Amino acid sequence: MTKQPKLALDAMGGDEAPRIVVEGADIAVAKNPDLTLVFVGDEQQIRPLLKTTKHLRSSEILHTTEQIAPEARVSQALRAGKQTSMWKAIELVAEGDAEAVVSAGNTGALMAMSKLQLRMIEGVSRPAIAGFFPSSTGQSCVLDLGANIECDAENLIQFAIMGTAFYRDIYGVKTPSVGLLNVGEEDQKGFDYLREAAKVLNLEKLDVNYYGFVEGSDITAGSVDVIVTDGFTGNAALKTAEGVANLFQSSLRQALSANIMGKLGYLLAKGGLASLRAKLDPRNHNGAVFLGLNGISVKSHGGTDAIGYANAINVAVNMVKQGFIPEVTTAIATANEIFAQEKTMSDDE
Amino acid sequence: MTKQPKLALDAMGGDEAPRIVVEGADIAVAKNPDLTLVFVGDEQQIRPLLKTTKHLRSSEILHTTEQIAPEARVSQALRAGKQTSMWKAIELVAEGDAEAVVSAGNTGALMAMSKLQLRMIEGVSRPAIAGFFPSSTGQSCVLDLGANIECDAENLIQFAIMGTAFYRDIYGVKTPSVGLLNVGEEDQKGFDYLREAAKVLNLEKLDVNYYGFVEGSDITAGSVDVIVTDGFTGNAALKTAEGVANLFQSSLRQALSANIMGKLGYLLAKGGLASLRAKLDPRNHNGAVFLGLNGISVKSHGGTDAIGYANAINVAVNMVKQGFIPEVTTAIATANEIFAQEKTMSDDE
Repeated sequence: MTKQPKLALDAMGGDEAPRIVVEGADIAVAKNPDLTLVFVGDEQQIRPLLKTTKHLRSSEILHTTEQIAPEARVSQALRAGKQTSMWKAIELVAEGDAEAVVSAGNTGALMAMSKLQLRMIEGVSRPAIAGFFPSSTGQSCVLDLGANIECDAENLIQFAIMGTAFYRDIYGVKTPSVGLLNVGEEDQKGFDYLREAAKVLNLEKLDVNYYGFVEGSDITAGSVDVIVTDGFTGNAALKTAEGVANLFQSSLRQALSANIMGKLGYLLAKGGLASLRAKLDPRNHNGAVFLGLNGISVKSHGGTDAIGYANAINVAVNMVKQGFIPEVTTAIATANEIFAQEKTMSDDE
Repeated sequence: MTKQPKLALDAMGGDEAPRIVVEGADIAVAKNPDLTLVFVGDEQQIRPLLKTTKHLRSSEILHTTEQIAPEARVSQALRAGKQTSMWKAIELVAEGDAEAVVSAGNTGALMAMSKLQLRMIEGVSRPAIAGFFPSSTGQSCVLDLGANIECDAENLIQFAIMGTAFYRDIYGVKTPSVGLLNVGEEDQKGFDYLREAAKVLNLEKLDVNYYGFVEGSDITAGSVDVIVTDGFTGNAALKTAEGVANLFQSSLRQALSANIMGKLGYLLAKGGLASLRAKLDPRNHNGAVFLGLNGISVKSHGGTDAIGYANAINVAVNMVKQGFIPEVTTAIATANEIFAQEKTMSDDE
């Protein structure tokens, strides 16, 4: 069952908005001709940009004059926010006029506004930020990347369920494997709540292909498809990975431009190096999603380019087409029933 | 004040022990001619290896027949361990016959045995594992890398004090800067215990050059010299960084051997790429240390080669020469006095 998706774009969010938003949208529509887009933001800026595109000349604009500053605190954003492009774009989803929102704006504000307007899927206790990392076998999904600094066993189990559906919808893998991030693979390692979550994830009735504990190195090793962790650890892992990738790339650039031999070598090896770049290109993994909300809200990296932005749109499109929200709603309801039964059984013991 | 160091080496620990241990030791002694080494392990295996070296022909061997298996659980290791090369090597330090121990064996066993035999520095509540990461400005030290999965404010403050002394002793930086790992740089972010630790680290009386909250990306950005975090997050960051580095290196190797152009390019750019490799070479950052113990215990990576092992020995040598243990003993005592005063003052208010 696929749907023809209609998306709301926060046209004013991101370092080079609205230009990158429009250019990215044009790429996304070229790939998904059944896609309808609403650009939310300053019509005077957006209209001329749309006119230069191939596919967006007659796209709808919802005019707004205000926008959230990239460095605004969440509290500021919420106070001043109801006339902003971000709020209005989310509102379209909340009111059923669009099926997903994409923004490259302030992450904290997007999370808070999305939570306020879209609310949670029934039975989900906490939302999680999910994102993709490159791995040696393709890509892995890690969640939570920072929505909750502290998580309990129930949160992690729900993240595993939501991450499973998310990975399935984006990559078409039927039963993605799931690992719990820990400081070792042995069963006795780590916090009590990790062992508790592991016990439940091992239940056969639960529709999670649970692999076991994994370590930080498994994120890029491709040992599992989905890695579940708390938002503090996930955020530290994400930022550390970005830091190492930056260091490696700048060092490589330096190495290949240090002298004439390096430069010549670079010219010759350009083809191979392009495939390296493509594999590790953060644009290919752009689009973090707030899972657990009763609506699809995708965060694009603020500094991405049109290709990266198009990928964030594609994430939203796949989630809409595959019916992510009803899928997770059912999966969480089923899981909560299983837990209730388990609890009754263990109370009866 | 420098000392002529005498070190005990667990000659049987590591993937290719005792060969790598002996070869690494030979490199280390060439660099530090005043260094005396005791090889702890199977004399029949060690003696012939020493005979092939330049500097170790007359080195002392403490013969042992048993050794800790690399995959042994800590509990197993402790039960069966008192005749092992690891235990005996630590014992030399505990009994004052050597000033530091280096092992490439089982990390958990080394930590547990070191704690048991060397005990803690007075006033230190928890030990921490400290290690080095490459950064764009040189190298950064991160602790705790996994000794304690849970830490409170007091632990983190002590880690900051010990990390400061460690970085100073290894790199000769007088007042290394220290950051607390968090999910953002703003003061209001993160756990209560992080804000509590930050408040104390900001005290001028305390001999810590505190920078503020940092993020995972700062580990390789070189924003600060020392990054303090709990052992769960530190371990996840370390393993994630290793994973990204592995992915990058294998992808680069693939890119430069995919076709004849890539191979030619590699040959031309070899010089520049060698400097890249040197910068990111994990051997240059080998040698994690259990800080807080009343004796120096250095863990080498189990899979390192002679150069990496020599670097782990160098870490121990620097700590001995610079008087790390008395330095930290004084710093912790002073800090604890300050806290006691602060407490009295705030109780009086």
